[in-house]
Amino acid sequence: MTASTIVPIRWCGDALELLDQRALPDREIRLRVNDATQTAQAITDMVVRGAPAIGITAAYGVALAAQRAEDSDWPQRLEDAIECLAASRPTAVNLFWALARMRGVIDRHRTQREAPVAALLDEAREIHQRDLADNLAMGRYGSELIARNGTCTVMTHCNTGALATGGHGTALGVIRSAWEQGLITLVHANETRPWLQGARLTAWELQREGIPVVLAADSAASLLLARGEIDWLIVGADRIAANGDVANKIGTYALAVQARHHGVKVMVVAPSSTFDLDLESGADIPIETRDSRELTHQGERRVAPENVKIFNPVFDITPAALIDAIVCEHGVIEPPNPTSIARLLGRT
Amino acid sequence: MTASTIVPIRWCGDALELLDQRALPDREIRLRVNDATQTAQAITDMVVRGAPAIGITAAYGVALAAQRAEDSDWPQRLEDAIECLAASRPTAVNLFWALARMRGVIDRHRTQREAPVAALLDEAREIHQRDLADNLAMGRYGSELIARNGTCTVMTHCNTGALATGGHGTALGVIRSAWEQGLITLVHANETRPWLQGARLTAWELQREGIPVVLAADSAASLLLARGEIDWLIVGADRIAANGDVANKIGTYALAVQARHHGVKVMVVAPSSTFDLDLESGADIPIETRDSRELTHQGERRVAPENVKIFNPVFDITPAALIDAIVCEHGVIEPPNPTSIARLLGRT
Repeated sequence: MTASTIVPIRWCGDALELLDQRALPDREIRLRVNDATQTAQAITDMVVRGAPAIGITAAYGVALAAQRAEDSDWPQRLEDAIECLAASRPTAVNLFWALARMRGVIDRHRTQREAPVAALLDEAREIHQRDLADNLAMGRYGSELIARNGTCTVMTHCNTGALATGGHGTALGVIRSAWEQGLITLVHANETRPWLQGARLTAWELQREGIPVVLAADSAASLLLARGEIDWLIVGADRIAANGDVANKIGTYALAVQARHHGVKVMVVAPSSTFDLDLESGADIPIETRDSRELTHQGERRVAPENVKIFNPVFDITPAALIDAIVCEHGVIEPPNPTSIARLLGRT
Repeated sequence: MTASTIVPIRWCGDALELLDQRALPDREIRLRVNDATQTAQAITDMVVRGAPAIGITAAYGVALAAQRAEDSDWPQRLEDAIECLAASRPTAVNLFWALARMRGVIDRHRTQREAPVAALLDEAREIHQRDLADNLAMGRYGSELIARNGTCTVMTHCNTGALATGGHGTALGVIRSAWEQGLITLVHANETRPWLQGARLTAWELQREGIPVVLAADSAASLLLARGEIDWLIVGADRIAANGDVANKIGTYALAVQARHHGVKVMVVAPSSTFDLDLESGADIPIETRDSRELTHQGERRVAPENVKIFNPVFDITPAALIDAIVCEHGVIEPPNPTSIARLLGRT
């Protein structure tokens, strides 16, 4: 199986180059960030988005901070950098997981006079490469699941592709892998309001790699599900609780309810770092809300009346009971529940 | 009960003035149309939209055609005008119903040398005034339904207000009437992709009249439904089959599935002219699809890759089984089925 040729995150020796996802699909702009503050800002501004990609970017951000922490007070400087990066997006658990790994490296070198630049960069690269390898493993496991029932048509939501990860993708990685094996004939991508990740990014990625894609408004999904045109709903996750409840892009829950209503199977694809076993259920997952402007404006044009009150949650919670399988790099959790999750993650 | 102060359709003696809904909420522009072709174009271009408003506008369009049909061949000219108007939008049954009424006037005057301008204008005015009176009746019936359980919070989709009708509104008319009686504390309006009728029009109408409104993306509705924050989902209809299946703005079906999943009641509000009893079920209702550009662009800006395939249906079908009550000007159909519908519409 081959990884995608799209490279959203690239280390350049003394800076990090990010493919600016806000400009896609119109223009491919690479933005350079030079320190942790710029990296955090890029995450907040959604230059880079997608839980695994955010984690990788933040890890490189700590390496950038280390390059610039030249005095003996480097542990405090790197702690400040980590705090700044941790505050960039509230929901993505991969962010906290990646920063905890970077902090581990810092702790092992705390007695050194100089910041462990090489060790931190190695750790960031290892997080990046591991994510890519994990995505390819998920691609294999997910494809095996799809292969049980032969070729199929799938629906996906948001963007969980090369752009959202270290490369290849989670849910879109499974789609990529299954398509390569001739298991998928068509992908229905939802545009994914308000940020249009499906239109801007997923349709772009699929089209670029020659995978047949049809784009529709989020609310058109029900028509396709009702007509029996979809075999699998395949989505990513931003955080998964110990019981299998999944926080993912707003709209996922509605799709899962409809998928169940129409007997369509639901697959969630996410690396094991997405699990937050300290959270008993989805009720404990905080829901991030974002700027009203995402709904009140299209570019500079106002499309809602001034001063209208806006509710703009970024995620919703899909209960485990509506999910047929969770695929991670260790295998398939089917069906997800506290026991099956703990077993696969090796915590029992 | 008072009607809305918003006047979207105004007859000016020799032209029709339409509030251009494409420019809202930013600018209030009144567009003059002078003949049937311009009227049909305004309907196609969505200067005016909403099934009842389309019917009223088309009726005035026939009156405009009559003013300009000065020779003895006027019946053929008016027939051409009706055909042109009938082709402006494919799904709205009110359009065909209004044109059939205008054709009735033509038939009664067919032997005259001159076009029955005054009679046709009277008929268009009667359709307009009747629609407004019917909306106020629906407002009363719908409010009675809501009053059974005291004050509540409601969700609505698309725009079914003064802008979509002869004034006041259908679903939004019920909301308006119920709010006036202190029965509604808050309205959740879905933005309604791709055309954003909820953001552009519904939020504008409600804000203008001081009714508390919160705007959200369509896919955020499930979060509100799951949290128990909605008591009624109140929507309009573009066409209703004999069994109570409802064609309405894309997204309605998804909301109805979710409402049922969460035990939230669903009310459909539409004048009796929306019923098409020749259609046994929703499966017989053709689904209009519209321009890809509604999804690929925001204004002039491209937000989807070039040449991507688009699925852009305007309507979906909500099965009667998911609808708790249909409110029309004759009363409440609860629950909707072939018998209850035929009984209220007086066809048995």
